[in-house]
Amino acid sequence: MAESSRSINIIRTDHDDRSMVADVVAVEEPLEIQLSSAVADGAAAKSVSITMRTPGHDDELALGFLYAEGILGGTDDVQDISAVGQADEETGLRNTIRVQTTPGLSLDLDRLQRHFYTTSSCGVCGKASLAALDVSGQQSLAPVRTRFPGGMLISLTDRIRDMQRVFAETGGLHAAAAFGPDGEIHIVREDIGRHNATDKVIGALVHADQVPGNELGLFVSGRASFELMQKALVAGIPLLAAVGAPSSLAVDMAKEFGMTLVGFLRDGGFNVYAGEDRII
Amino acid sequence: MAESSRSINIIRTDHDDRSMVADVVAVEEPLEIQLSSAVADGAAAKSVSITMRTPGHDDELALGFLYAEGILGGTDDVQDISAVGQADEETGLRNTIRVQTTPGLSLDLDRLQRHFYTTSSCGVCGKASLAALDVSGQQSLAPVRTRFPGGMLISLTDRIRDMQRVFAETGGLHAAAAFGPDGEIHIVREDIGRHNATDKVIGALVHADQVPGNELGLFVSGRASFELMQKALVAGIPLLAAVGAPSSLAVDMAKEFGMTLVGFLRDGGFNVYAGEDRII
Repeated sequence: MAESSRSINIIRTDHDDRSMVADVVAVEEPLEIQLSSAVADGAAAKSVSITMRTPGHDDELALGFLYAEGILGGTDDVQDISAVGQADEETGLRNTIRVQTTPGLSLDLDRLQRHFYTTSSCGVCGKASLAALDVSGQQSLAPVRTRFPGGMLISLTDRIRDMQRVFAETGGLHAAAAFGPDGEIHIVREDIGRHNATDKVIGALVHADQVPGNELGLFVSGRASFELMQKALVAGIPLLAAVGAPSSLAVDMAKEFGMTLVGFLRDGGFNVYAGEDRII
Repeated sequence: MAESSRSINIIRTDHDDRSMVADVVAVEEPLEIQLSSAVADGAAAKSVSITMRTPGHDDELALGFLYAEGILGGTDDVQDISAVGQADEETGLRNTIRVQTTPGLSLDLDRLQRHFYTTSSCGVCGKASLAALDVSGQQSLAPVRTRFPGGMLISLTDRIRDMQRVFAETGGLHAAAAFGPDGEIHIVREDIGRHNATDKVIGALVHADQVPGNELGLFVSGRASFELMQKALVAGIPLLAAVGAPSSLAVDMAKEFGMTLVGFLRDGGFNVYAGEDRII
């Protein structure tokens, strides 16, 4: 089991008091995600991403990342996921994860290029970023079927915080979670990066064949950005609820693709920036 | 002047009250950073990065990014920085910034490859990431000369918050700041991304020929990660003070390179994770 946190000694200053105390910090280590086809030998594995992440659920992180980027369509495309390379002597940690695809699967790695295209009409801009999603085949979400009670949403922030094991130790990790309209929290994942925590949740959903997640909501502990909305959209999740503020482009995207965007989910309240008909 | 925030209508739920209110969100738009040499014409400009940022101080963002990545060594390397491409019809915003380098400057764009190298000893790992910084010529910082009073550090979080214009409107922006040991706040910059806010501060320092910032501290409103420590190191700034938690690799890096790392700078206290001899 990879370590997600590590103990160290620090000097704590609290107003005028100064003392040496033991503390715990969240582990940050690089993870290399490799893709290999079943026929190729290990040497032909292709490195597709390196991200700084908190160890734990690396297989879900790889699967969720590749799914959200449109490279893999689901578990049928995957033959095996395993940690490879040399293990760290002290921790046993491996920082390379290899996803072996199903024989005969053809991969479109060009999708890994970032989703920003220059258009003749507006150059590099948010509108072009949204148009690029359209072009890549992303559909608007289906009309509203699932509705989420506002009181349930308000309860999420504290309930998910209570489930964050590493946050409780370190005070320093983002969380993402998938939840149902009844308030059931299906999956909680933590990471030093919001995108990684979200990829881990989506990877767990893909692994359980729960995508598209038409009847789920996605919770994130920080701000709501374009990239997080994009991950929710690709996973078919119609509602994103963020503890922090949304960006202008996250709001535009929610409106454009028929999604619900909730922000500032804390202190007994929340704001709805788009798709309020999914909230009761 | 590019708009950093935008007004929209939202539905606000506060416990049992529900109302339609006006709100302001932070703008998120892509920025393409291009490099061109003075002799080449516009068509030969090379795209080196696309980042999602909050418009404003784009020139500093480009300059700080290229400096922190080791591509440019200072203002002597730059002939001109200007926004190019088509302006948005509504906002006038341009999302491409072109940095024209001084004639004859030779650029090492390989440095833009991420700083993770696989080593034969431990594969992809944090130690390799630190070793790669060593290899790229980063020196440990000089022995302690400048010392920062703890009480001054405690005062920073509120004082910088008061200077965040866009945060006050939107509740959703990170800040980075450069400050002196006397508590003077030299530069505050905001962005939806911590790295961008940090790049803007470093860009402003480069522009003012204040790098290396041997006698400065760098404040960041969020967590302290490997990448932020790396930016401080390249800019020669010996102290990073973060409102949030540090990662394990940020702590390792501070110790390895002789830097001071302060975390949880809030509520009248802070933790020192490395380099406590710079704090009085």
